[in-house]
Amino acid sequence: MTTPAYPFVKGHGTENDFVLLPDHDGSVHGDLPAARVAALCDRRAGIGGDGVIRVIRTAALADAAAGTEWFMDYRNADGSVSEMCGNGVRVLARHLADEGLVDPAEPLPLGTRDGVKTVVFEADGTMTVDMGSPRLLGDSEVAVGERAWKATHVDMGNPHAVAFVGSLDDAGSLLEPPEHDRATYPHGVNVEFVVRRGARHVAFRVHERGSGETRSCGTGACAVMVAAAVADGEAGGDAGPPGQDLAYTVDVPGGRLTVTWTAGDRTLLTGPAVLVARGTSTL
Amino acid sequence: MTTPAYPFVKGHGTENDFVLLPDHDGSVHGDLPAARVAALCDRRAGIGGDGVIRVIRTAALADAAAGTEWFMDYRNADGSVSEMCGNGVRVLARHLADEGLVDPAEPLPLGTRDGVKTVVFEADGTMTVDMGSPRLLGDSEVAVGERAWKATHVDMGNPHAVAFVGSLDDAGSLLEPPEHDRATYPHGVNVEFVVRRGARHVAFRVHERGSGETRSCGTGACAVMVAAAVADGEAGGDAGPPGQDLAYTVDVPGGRLTVTWTAGDRTLLTGPAVLVARGTSTL
Repeated sequence: MTTPAYPFVKGHGTENDFVLLPDHDGSVHGDLPAARVAALCDRRAGIGGDGVIRVIRTAALADAAAGTEWFMDYRNADGSVSEMCGNGVRVLARHLADEGLVDPAEPLPLGTRDGVKTVVFEADGTMTVDMGSPRLLGDSEVAVGERAWKATHVDMGNPHAVAFVGSLDDAGSLLEPPEHDRATYPHGVNVEFVVRRGARHVAFRVHERGSGETRSCGTGACAVMVAAAVADGEAGGDAGPPGQDLAYTVDVPGGRLTVTWTAGDRTLLTGPAVLVARGTSTL
Repeated sequence: MTTPAYPFVKGHGTENDFVLLPDHDGSVHGDLPAARVAALCDRRAGIGGDGVIRVIRTAALADAAAGTEWFMDYRNADGSVSEMCGNGVRVLARHLADEGLVDPAEPLPLGTRDGVKTVVFEADGTMTVDMGSPRLLGDSEVAVGERAWKATHVDMGNPHAVAFVGSLDDAGSLLEPPEHDRATYPHGVNVEFVVRRGARHVAFRVHERGSGETRSCGTGACAVMVAAAVADGEAGGDAGPPGQDLAYTVDVPGGRLTVTWTAGDRTLLTGPAVLVARGTSTL
């Protein structure tokens, strides 16, 4: 049996890349089999991507968040269901705006499995999404080979260990997961290696649990910014000056992000999204 | 300036993958800038591929091989010009046949920078291309870390060192080029690690010079088959029984190939080609 050709769009946010599958009423992909997601994400036998985002109306999903028109049905590259992705949500918003399906002059609420996320279209073409409140959970330690560093434990809904290093090369090839405290992180941890680039400006590499080194990590950027701000004595959020937001430039291997720690103790992630190709597939 | 959207097709042969750019009269891409090829082949910021194949009529190229209607304008992922690719030529042939531009009932001569290559469409959907005559150049040695193996030096227009190993895992991660005799291979070498799977049936992993480990290598499959046949006492070509061809099944990480060493001392590579997506890009 040949699969009928269905539409796709490929795009990325700071080189975290996705295959978007327009399926507004859910009739194209049904329950979207994991095998199709894995075939699409295969970087040699498929189109290639870190994940698939099905573009679907919330009304077409029985158990989805109410109060939104569009839902981000995100799947990992292996086909498993995932809650949200801070870079992917911008790519979805860019696609919806480019198609004329939403008005970029207005904040865009999107349903996700992690609740409603609101994307703001900025004047410079970037987009901002609220990534939630950080939780600072004290000190830990990470190691690569013979080298070890003190790390800050930051929880962004997922666990992070943020280590300041002398050079981004210090972490080596990052082909293996860095060693970490298994009592602190019983389910593994995302490890960020950070250098300072200037005032309120840092850069990092990341090893994501289950994925290896990646070109960008949205929750990692937020965790890095919070750890850097605290280390700089510039605590934001509840501990910061009332009513004042704190913004850092955060460079990742795949591009540049901005993280703002608001007076209301939220982290806002701002960055680009680019659509590079569109067409049809029969995978 | 925004690039106008142009068409592309993505496909692969045993997971050696390519972005095809239909440009029949050369008016779409002009001299096809290296930067566009590199952007298209980028696996995260682009579409992703091991190379780009421009689909162009021979008549549209001033310096191309005469006597063919279609030319394989092959570029490496970094944008540099390349002669030919044994897996890519099948993907191009599949595309031309699917578009109705050529008749798959007839052998298809294709112009390449390595001369005219003729593709034969087989009844089972695979395709066969003549990869030229092998040159057996004696023994050498390769090593990975502490382990070393005797290797057979086979030249297929490019240099190969074929080593028989106990298990495909023996070569380790292949992240670094295997050590080799620099006097024998002054310009580097493609190294194949081979195991036997049965009668006239082998499997191999390959480290390609300049590319690292890949999912498939057409000239490597030919070199491996020739070395295996000689080791099996089944010399083909000039040394084989008159008028009799010798065929081996050759498994690569990305699929299955067949190599036939003809009585006329040619190596014929037979394998699949799959087109997985088509659309437009503005990269």
